[in-house]
Amino acid sequence: MENFKIADKEFKSRLFTGTGKFKNSQLMKEALEASESELATVALKRVDAGDAHDQILTHLNHDRISLLPNTSGVRTAKEAVFAAQLAREALETNWIKLEIHPDPKYLMPDPIETLKATEELAKLGFIVLPYIHADPVLCKRLEDAGTSAVMPLGSPIGSNKGLKTIDFLEIIIEQANVPVVVDAGIGAPSDAAKAMELGADACLVNTAIAVSDNPVQMAIAFKMAIEAGRMAYEAKLASPVNNAIASSPLLTAFLDEL
Amino acid sequence: MENFKIADKEFKSRLFTGTGKFKNSQLMKEALEASESELATVALKRVDAGDAHDQILTHLNHDRISLLPNTSGVRTAKEAVFAAQLAREALETNWIKLEIHPDPKYLMPDPIETLKATEELAKLGFIVLPYIHADPVLCKRLEDAGTSAVMPLGSPIGSNKGLKTIDFLEIIIEQANVPVVVDAGIGAPSDAAKAMELGADACLVNTAIAVSDNPVQMAIAFKMAIEAGRMAYEAKLASPVNNAIASSPLLTAFLDEL
Amino acid sequence: MENFKIADKEFKSRLFTGTGKFKNSQLMKEALEASESELATVALKRVDAGDAHDQILTHLNHDRISLLPNTSGVRTAKEAVFAAQLAREALETNWIKLEIHPDPKYLMPDPIETLKATEELAKLGFIVLPYIHADPVLCKRLEDAGTSAVMPLGSPIGSNKGLKTIDFLEIIIEQANVPVVVDAGIGAPSDAAKAMELGADACLVNTAIAVSDNPVQMAIAFKMAIEAGRMAYEAKLASPVNNAIASSPLLTAFLDEL
Amino acid sequence: MENFKIADKEFKSRLFTGTGKFKNSQLMKEALEASESELATVALKRVDAGDAHDQILTHLNHDRISLLPNTSGVRTAKEAVFAAQLAREALETNWIKLEIHPDPKYLMPDPIETLKATEELAKLGFIVLPYIHADPVLCKRLEDAGTSAVMPLGSPIGSNKGLKTIDFLEIIIEQANVPVVVDAGIGAPSDAAKAMELGADACLVNTAIAVSDNPVQMAIAFKMAIEAGRMAYEAKLASPVNNAIASSPLLTAFLDEL
Repeated sequence: MENFKIADKEFKSRLFTGTGKFKNSQLMKEALEASESELATVALKRVDAGDAHDQILTHLNHDRISLLPNTSGVRTAKEAVFAAQLAREALETNWIKLEIHPDPKYLMPDPIETLKATEELAKLGFIVLPYIHADPVLCKRLEDAGTSAVMPLGSPIGSNKGLKTIDFLEIIIEQANVPVVVDAGIGAPSDAAKAMELGADACLVNTAIAVSDNPVQMAIAFKMAIEAGRMAYEAKLASPVNNAIASSPLLTAFLDEL
Repeated sequence: MENFKIADKEFKSRLFTGTGKFKNSQLMKEALEASESELATVALKRVDAGDAHDQILTHLNHDRISLLPNTSGVRTAKEAVFAAQLAREALETNWIKLEIHPDPKYLMPDPIETLKATEELAKLGFIVLPYIHADPVLCKRLEDAGTSAVMPLGSPIGSNKGLKTIDFLEIIIEQANVPVVVDAGIGAPSDAAKAMELGADACLVNTAIAVSDNPVQMAIAFKMAIEAGRMAYEAKLASPVNNAIASSPLLTAFLDEL
Repeated sequence: MENFKIADKEFKSRLFTGTGKFKNSQLMKEALEASESELATVALKRVDAGDAHDQILTHLNHDRISLLPNTSGVRTAKEAVFAAQLAREALETNWIKLEIHPDPKYLMPDPIETLKATEELAKLGFIVLPYIHADPVLCKRLEDAGTSAVMPLGSPIGSNKGLKTIDFLEIIIEQANVPVVVDAGIGAPSDAAKAMELGADACLVNTAIAVSDNPVQMAIAFKMAIEAGRMAYEAKLASPVNNAIASSPLLTAFLDEL
Repeated sequence: MENFKIADKEFKSRLFTGTGKFKNSQLMKEALEASESELATVALKRVDAGDAHDQILTHLNHDRISLLPNTSGVRTAKEAVFAAQLAREALETNWIKLEIHPDPKYLMPDPIETLKATEELAKLGFIVLPYIHADPVLCKRLEDAGTSAVMPLGSPIGSNKGLKTIDFLEIIIEQANVPVVVDAGIGAPSDAAKAMELGADACLVNTAIAVSDNPVQMAIAFKMAIEAGRMAYEAKLASPVNNAIASSPLLTAFLDEL
C-alpha cells in the first residue's frame, strides 16, 4: 500500500480520526493508538492554550499522531480565520480543518464562506483541509484557492448514514489534483472500505468509533477496512456484469456424458 | 474475534474461497494462502480422482485449507446427490456445497431441488452447505431438512453486483439456527465487510479475487475486510440518525463570548 | 396503453387492489372505485358465504371489479387447497391468490408449499396467482406447474419499503411467459411506477392506499403512477449515462464569439 | 392538487420542460402540449431575437406555456448576467434560469458564481431560478440573495441517473422558504414521482422526454407521474416499517378452528 502526502507531510495511515464524543480521555487515547491514525482532528474549543494539563494534548503521543484543529461551530469565513489563528497559536500547527456550518441541525457546510476562508488562510500560510459538500466544482475552486486537500462528506456529520454521495465523490476523485479525504457520515467499516475502493486518499472517522460499545476494537476494524479498500483499489476491482458468470466450471456437460 | 463452527469443524477465518477463474494454479495457490482461508470450494469436474497430479489437489496445503466440493452445473436433486457421492469418493470428504442452477444465464439456484437434495444428502451423512436465493422461509426449511449452514446469495454468481439482498439477509440472519455464509455476487471488500456487519457468519468470495489484476493482494484485502466487518459487528455499530450530531463541540458559544 | 390478460380475462387497469386495513367499508368502496381497479383481493376469512349482508360483497360493484380471494394465513399446500375450495364455493370464482406464509413476523412466502399448491390447484381448474419471493427459478417452475401469473414481492407485505428486489424482478420479467404482477411492499406511487417501468404487467397495492390519510386520493395517485410507468415502458426510457449531456446547447461558443 | 406559485406567477402544472434534444420542432411542440407544462426552458443560443421565424418562438402556444430562457454554457457570474440581459431583450421576460457550469464533462453547477449572479440579477429585477447542486446551505444563501426558487439537481444533467441526492433534497425541502424545483438527472416518471413525494414543488424534465422513442407519450407519462407524486404527498404516505404487517386477516385461526 502506497503512502500518500498532504502538503509536505507523508502518511502511512489513511485513517484520520477525531477526538470528540468518547466517554473519557483514556478510552480516546487507547482507541486512537489502536487505530494507528497519524492525524486526529480536535475542536478548538477543547484546547486551552494556557492549561498545561489539557487532556487531549497530554493524552496523545505527539510523535505518532498529529493534531488537526478544526473550526467546528464557526459560521463565517471571518470567524474561521480568527479561529485558525487561535489554533495556530495554541497548538503550534499551521494545519487547519475548516468547518463552517451555519445550520445547527444538519451541520452542512457553507460553500461560499468555506472558499473565502480557504483563500485567506492559504495566503496566511495555513495548510487548509476544508470540510465540504460533495461538490465537484467547489473542489476545483478550492484547488485554485490553494487548498491542500478536500474533505467532501459522505452524509451529514454524525448521521452514520454512510456514503450517500457516491456519484459525486467519483467525479471529485476523477478530477482532483489534491488528496480527497472523505469526511462525515461514515458509519461502518464497509463505508470506509467503499470510499477507498472509489479511490479516495483517506477517510476521517470519529463518531462511529467513539460511540461504539468497544471503541478500541472499532478503531482496529476501521483501520483494517481502510487498508482493505485501498489494497483493493490498487489491485483493481472487476466491474459489475449483468449476466452471472460461473466461477466453477459447470458439471452439466460432464453429467451429460455419463 | 470469535471462531465459529460449521458441523463439528471450527474456523478461525470467516473467508471461504473458490478455486475457479484464476489465471493459473500457482496464482490460485498463492492467493488462497494469502487469504488465510480454511475452506475452498472446488468444482467436481475439476477433480479427477484417478489422476495423482491433479493440480488443485497437489497445489494446496491440506493441513491448512479444506476442500469443499461443489455440484456446480447439476440441474436436479438427483444429479446433485450423484455428484456429491462422486465427490465424497474422490476427495474423501462428506462436505458438499450444493449448487443446483438450471438456468445457464443467471445461475440462480432452484429452491425446490435444493431442498430435496439437502434432505437426501443429510440422510446420507453429508455436511450440506446449500447455495440459495436470500429466501428466509427456504432457510428455515433447509434447517428442518438437516442442512449444516445456509449460503444465501448477495447477487447472481460472478456478477460483482454486491449485496442486492440486504433486506432479506437481515431476516435470514435474525432467524437462523445454523451459520449463514453469504455467497455469490460479492464484488469488493466493502461488500464482504457489509455482510459481516449485518451479522453473517462468513462470506464466500471467488470471482472478485481470481479476476483481479493482483489476486494475492485482493485476497489479503478481502481477509482484512471480513475481519473488520466481524469486529465491527461484535463491537456494535451505531444506528443511522436523521439529524447531524457534531463530533466536535461547536465553537459558536465560544465565539459569542468573545 | 395496451390491455393485458391473465388466463382469459382482459384487464384495462394494471392496478390490482386489496380490501384490507381500510377504516371502514364505505371508504374501501370509494377508494377502490377511484382506483379503477378491476381486481381486488379479499381474505377468505372476511367472506361469509351464508351472510347476505357481507360488507365486501355488497359494497363493491361486481360488474366493474372482480374479487380475487386469497389464502392469507395458511401455512401449507394442503391448507391452501382447502381454502381455495372454500373460496370457490363462497365467491363463485375459480381465481385464487395463493399466499402461504408460515412466518408470522415477516409473512415471507414458502416456495415449496406454494409450488405444491399451485400444481394441485391448477389441476383442479383454478386460475392460480401465487405470491412469491422474487425468485426467478421458482417462477419458471410455477409456469411448468400451470400458474396463470406470478406475483413476486417488492419487499415484505405491509412494510412500505418499496422495491428491494429490482435486480431479481428484472430477471423474472425477462424470462417470464406468464404475466408478472409485483405484489407486497409497494409503499408509494413512485415504487409502482418503477415496477411498471421495469416491464411488470401489473402491481397489487393495498396497505399504502388503505392506511393513507386520504385513501381515495391515494388510490387515484397509484392509478396514475401505474399508467405513467407503463406508458414510459412502452415509449422506452433512455439508459443512464456516465457523463452529463447538455439538454441545452452551450452558450460558451456564442460568448466566445462576442 | 394545489396550485403553486413562483414569484407572482401561478402554476397548475408542476412539470417544467425543456426544448432541447428533440428530433424536430414539430415533435417538441406536440410533446410540450401533451405535457400540459406551463413553463419550458430554452437555451439563449437558440433564440434569435431578430428572426421572426425562430422555430421555438413560433411553434409554442405562448398563451399556455411561458418560456424560461437559460444561460446554459456560461462559466461566470459576469457572463450569466450578460446572457440574462440578452434574454430579457430577446424574449421579453425577466425570468431567467441560471446555469453556470464551467466543467464541460459533468456540467455540475458552480456554487460561487451562481450565488454572485443571483445577487446581481435579483437586484436588476430578474426572477431568478438557479440550477444548483443539492446543497442545503447554498439554498439558504440564495434565498437571502433574492432567488425566486431553487433548482437542485437529482444527478448530472442528461445522465438519466435519477435521484442520487435524496438525503439532501429532503433537507432542502424541509428548510426552504422558496419553491424547490428538482432539475437534472430525472430519467423516468418514477424519479419525478419520487421527487414530488418528498415534497418538491415541481420537476424540470427535458432529456428523458426528448430522447424517448415516443416523446409525446413520455410527456404524458411524466405529467401523470408528477401529479401522482404530488397527490400522494398531499394524502400522506405511510412510513416504512421493519416487520411485515398483513393486509389480509390471517386465515390461521380460522383453520385452527376447523
